[in-house]
Amino acid sequence: MKLTDMNKDQLNAFEQACRNEYEEYKAKGMKLDMSRGKPGVDQLDICMPMFDVFTNSASMITEDGIDCRNYGELTGISDAKRLFGELLGVASDEIIIGGNSSLAMMYDTVSRALSHGVLGSKQPWNKYEKIKFLCPAPGYDRHFAICEHFGIEMIPVPMNPDGPDMDMVEKLVSENETIKGIWCVPLYSNPEGIAYSDEVVRRFANLSPKAEDFRIFWDNAYCVHHLTDTPDHILNILDECKKTGKEDMVFIFASTSKISFPGAGVAIMAGSAANMKQITKLMGIQCISYDKINQLRHVKYFKNVDGIMAHMAKHREIIAPKFRLVLDMLNDNMQDLNILEWNSPNGGYFISVNTLDGCAKRVVQLCREAGVVLTAAGATFPYGIDPRDRNIRIAPTYPPLSELEEAMKIFCISVKLAAAEKLLG
Amino acid sequence: MKLTDMNKDQLNAFEQACRNEYEEYKAKGMKLDMSRGKPGVDQLDICMPMFDVFTNSASMITEDGIDCRNYGELTGISDAKRLFGELLGVASDEIIIGGNSSLAMMYDTVSRALSHGVLGSKQPWNKYEKIKFLCPAPGYDRHFAICEHFGIEMIPVPMNPDGPDMDMVEKLVSENETIKGIWCVPLYSNPEGIAYSDEVVRRFANLSPKAEDFRIFWDNAYCVHHLTDTPDHILNILDECKKTGKEDMVFIFASTSKISFPGAGVAIMAGSAANMKQITKLMGIQCISYDKINQLRHVKYFKNVDGIMAHMAKHREIIAPKFRLVLDMLNDNMQDLNILEWNSPNGGYFISVNTLDGCAKRVVQLCREAGVVLTAAGATFPYGIDPRDRNIRIAPTYPPLSELEEAMKIFCISVKLAAAEKLLG
Repeated sequence: MKLTDMNKDQLNAFEQACRNEYEEYKAKGMKLDMSRGKPGVDQLDICMPMFDVFTNSASMITEDGIDCRNYGELTGISDAKRLFGELLGVASDEIIIGGNSSLAMMYDTVSRALSHGVLGSKQPWNKYEKIKFLCPAPGYDRHFAICEHFGIEMIPVPMNPDGPDMDMVEKLVSENETIKGIWCVPLYSNPEGIAYSDEVVRRFANLSPKAEDFRIFWDNAYCVHHLTDTPDHILNILDECKKTGKEDMVFIFASTSKISFPGAGVAIMAGSAANMKQITKLMGIQCISYDKINQLRHVKYFKNVDGIMAHMAKHREIIAPKFRLVLDMLNDNMQDLNILEWNSPNGGYFISVNTLDGCAKRVVQLCREAGVVLTAAGATFPYGIDPRDRNIRIAPTYPPLSELEEAMKIFCISVKLAAAEKLLG
Repeated sequence: MKLTDMNKDQLNAFEQACRNEYEEYKAKGMKLDMSRGKPGVDQLDICMPMFDVFTNSASMITEDGIDCRNYGELTGISDAKRLFGELLGVASDEIIIGGNSSLAMMYDTVSRALSHGVLGSKQPWNKYEKIKFLCPAPGYDRHFAICEHFGIEMIPVPMNPDGPDMDMVEKLVSENETIKGIWCVPLYSNPEGIAYSDEVVRRFANLSPKAEDFRIFWDNAYCVHHLTDTPDHILNILDECKKTGKEDMVFIFASTSKISFPGAGVAIMAGSAANMKQITKLMGIQCISYDKINQLRHVKYFKNVDGIMAHMAKHREIIAPKFRLVLDMLNDNMQDLNILEWNSPNGGYFISVNTLDGCAKRVVQLCREAGVVLTAAGATFPYGIDPRDRNIRIAPTYPPLSELEEAMKIFCISVKLAAAEKLLG
């Protein structure tokens, strides 16, 4: 029965039953973490052979004779450019292989744009009194944190099932010269798991921003992170931008953080050759070279894109059951109550749910008090403010299945309890 | 015979003899590189066992149970803080273990100071119309490049045999609120190999800057890079600053780039707990965590400071003969001519020479045309301008001994030829 169809007595009874069940869970004093998109230990284990790829000094030389153990090759070794260029569909002069963190590459890119501008900037971004970024929301809290850190005003853009509201994006960027960027997670978006439709990608490539130094920050974090036999696909944004003659408009980012190891993977940036050249010149002031040994370790282990895909199938084997468990439990516990909406993503690391308006914070609080840590409510929106206080990001990958089930029981009862409290006023 | 004592005929004969010898070398068409402080291949080889330290998943857990393969531990693993804290003489809350590049840590520190200020700043440094850094010169070109990149005005400070001219440093920092920093390489300074005397270090710790957010950038890049049985020692700057109650005035940097692997080592930052706390908070926007696997790899390989010192003895065994060769050749070829001065460092990576005024660029050009690449003349001074055009940085570590000998022959003859040209007007 829908909670909204219950009369007050029914609701009171429902609430009391939920509270009793909740208190039982709470009494168990569990400690469970579903807050961040962290791989589980079994996912880390499948990548251990990566540490066996170097047999001697000679194995540390690249295909073009570079010794990975010494300084040099600021933009990355050619072996890695070939592998990850193939993965992203870009040429070797359209890619920079970085350190261990694509977040750092994004942060550094914004930071450099502020201090020096991007290719085609009339002035560094920090010379403007105020610049703005469009932020499709719900979105990735760490993107938003970069904007907040640098005082970049964030304009939330609603997300549709096929990507950001492009009518709004087109209108805003064409009208306002101080809008300098937009954050995108185009495949298996964080947190909703949405894939941008071909039309959306083409509309991105067709944008006519008032700011000639406007940039699309295309964080393709989950480019090979499929969870089903019917994975989503997105168009190659750089190819589409070339068709419209706007190939300088996009910065692409990716990493192996959730392919090999979080924190010990390889980060990648891609874009037009002209963009890469401008960035390389500035980047050389910050760093002599990134960790080429780790770059070569990845290339030797994965060998080619097929190797990456085969490896991702192993990840899927481990985490798809976790997603299935969450979705099954939501179906079983929530379907008839009309108090929760959720997505069923074909990939990525998250399941995004919407509670009744005004319930998300309460659900997160109830979960925390019962020992289950969720991403803070509001975190998926700019400034941490979810205008409807309803979105919660569930990250099912880190806990083992048994713990995940316990955590989801607490989550479901917390949603029910919060909804009943809300409806009872 | 001193060149300056020769009459014109003698000089002409000397110049002609030099030119003939120079042309002979030039005809050999050699390609030799003494431009950067790069370790040689044999130095890289001694560190190869570092890749055998991980035997299984369990070996990737820190002493306090952290799995180095996953996200977390932004400021570094406790094992690494213990090892490198002991090395630098700082406590675990006075150190941050970073990525692969101390240059990047320095750049990021300056960049954050510009956008957000440091602890105690009244405003971010980029809110000032102009800020300035003191630059003891000759010094490290990449320090100067950071300043130039960010538009920070550089004020050269002369180097004395015991460190920077402290009379000048004290006077300038006490008078000018826009002087926000000074670059120091306190032990085996780049390029002169000078060690700051105890008095100089104490005078640093006693500085009374007009800017309350003035910082000493203490790049202890060569802290264990001794070359002789009578190594130099410097006082612990943080300890000295604590004695004067000014422990927030110093940022210390170091790395294992020339201990383990350039580009694949571990970078370190240290300073007061309050400074580290302020930096950690801002750093968390840029990065989730650095490469903890590589941090643990270093700890497992070196184990403790004794392990680092034993390892450095192996480096010394390889590179001390290279320094000796350069110094012997300078002695044999130059001593009586009165056209070149040089230092005999007890450690570090460079030998710094001063030609006759106005000859450094010409020497570097002559060497280049004969196939020997040296660091650009002027690079050791702010804005690449050596006011007397006399300083050249020799980096003897990268070439094998046989090549180094050839390169030094060309260097010596180039110095002679340039001096003769100069004296002949």
